[in-house]
Amino acid sequence: MTENARPAVVLLSGGMDSAVVLAIARAQGFEGHALSVRYGQRHSVELDAAAAVARALGAAAHKVVDVDLRAIGGSALTADIAVPEFPAAGIPVTYVPARNTIMLALALGWAEVLGAQDLFVGVNAVDYSGYPDCRPAFVEAFERLANLATRAGVEGRRLRVHAPLLALSKADIVRRGIELGVDFSATVSCYQADSRGRACGRCDACRLRAQGFVEAGVADPTRYA
Amino acid sequence: MTENARPAVVLLSGGMDSAVVLAIARAQGFEGHALSVRYGQRHSVELDAAAAVARALGAAAHKVVDVDLRAIGGSALTADIAVPEFPAAGIPVTYVPARNTIMLALALGWAEVLGAQDLFVGVNAVDYSGYPDCRPAFVEAFERLANLATRAGVEGRRLRVHAPLLALSKADIVRRGIELGVDFSATVSCYQADSRGRACGRCDACRLRAQGFVEAGVADPTRYA
Repeated sequence: MTENARPAVVLLSGGMDSAVVLAIARAQGFEGHALSVRYGQRHSVELDAAAAVARALGAAAHKVVDVDLRAIGGSALTADIAVPEFPAAGIPVTYVPARNTIMLALALGWAEVLGAQDLFVGVNAVDYSGYPDCRPAFVEAFERLANLATRAGVEGRRLRVHAPLLALSKADIVRRGIELGVDFSATVSCYQADSRGRACGRCDACRLRAQGFVEAGVADPTRYA
Repeated sequence: MTENARPAVVLLSGGMDSAVVLAIARAQGFEGHALSVRYGQRHSVELDAAAAVARALGAAAHKVVDVDLRAIGGSALTADIAVPEFPAAGIPVTYVPARNTIMLALALGWAEVLGAQDLFVGVNAVDYSGYPDCRPAFVEAFERLANLATRAGVEGRRLRVHAPLLALSKADIVRRGIELGVDFSATVSCYQADSRGRACGRCDACRLRAQGFVEAGVADPTRYA
């Protein structure tokens, strides 16, 4: 990191995608300010993983914001709905309503405090599991909003929302991470990992992840229960 | 309320503006689902006021979502910065970074869970205190985002963001509230109200509010410390 590195806020979940995003932001010369959101999700071991990833990839800071989405319910990840073991058609029950909008809004708040003009988010339109807020049009609309919502926008300092994984396959993400030295064994993708961060190997997130390693021709370092 | 009233999510702070918004939503035939956000603000007596207002105006539900914005700091309302007693030029220190973006994002999440297509927010561009996220362009940009971010948008059910106070003066808001039977004595606008909800009478929010009653020619029911 150079002394004059510009700050960027990077949403970091503890999963593999956002770890690669943080590595990309760092490789582009940004000072990484990692933000994790504890939204009442079942898989809180992800947050321990996020802290480890932030440290390993040289983030300048790592903050956790608490948002208790259990008050509004509506997802298998925050309410008492079983996580399915077989992929379903359409938007899955693991979709957290407006999650990426909420997380980007929090990232935007921190960016304003830091004077950062760059937000990084690991949304992905290829293996996006049917979530509406993982599409290019969503990212563009949020960037437009960000420039109207903030002090930076009022003062003419343009904000950018970077979604460097948008057009990558899971295998591409694995390859990019390996190039940038990401230690995937520290990341947790499973929707129902155990208290030691070991994956179930059966949920949608586990299937997508495992397939990514297979297609990239890279040994899968995931710890399974 | 009719049996077939459509649900709407109404952001309710406990202040006077959002109370009038809830009354307007109800007058338009919506079933009001009031959402308050506890964001680590100093003036938590506002939330008691919000609960009282929700009850008095016949909201179908009132939920409080916790978001701890103290983690990211940056405002006199959430950090250890003194609330000023004299209006300053530009964006004031009481501005909470990205606050309306965050609150609308949470409202959007609840709307998805409820199947509601209507969000109501009390932003106001006339007496807006210099906050960037109280402008018409911000509201339009959020509505556009909402339709891209959600299940409703994917399925073609259009979401609308209503900001019925956008072009009203504080005096207009007082008059509209009186017409609709809003009990303003239950509302708290002060940035530093005491534990019994009594206003300081000196901060920007108190000044704007008091001036609204004067200009509307209505006796000010505010309880001052």
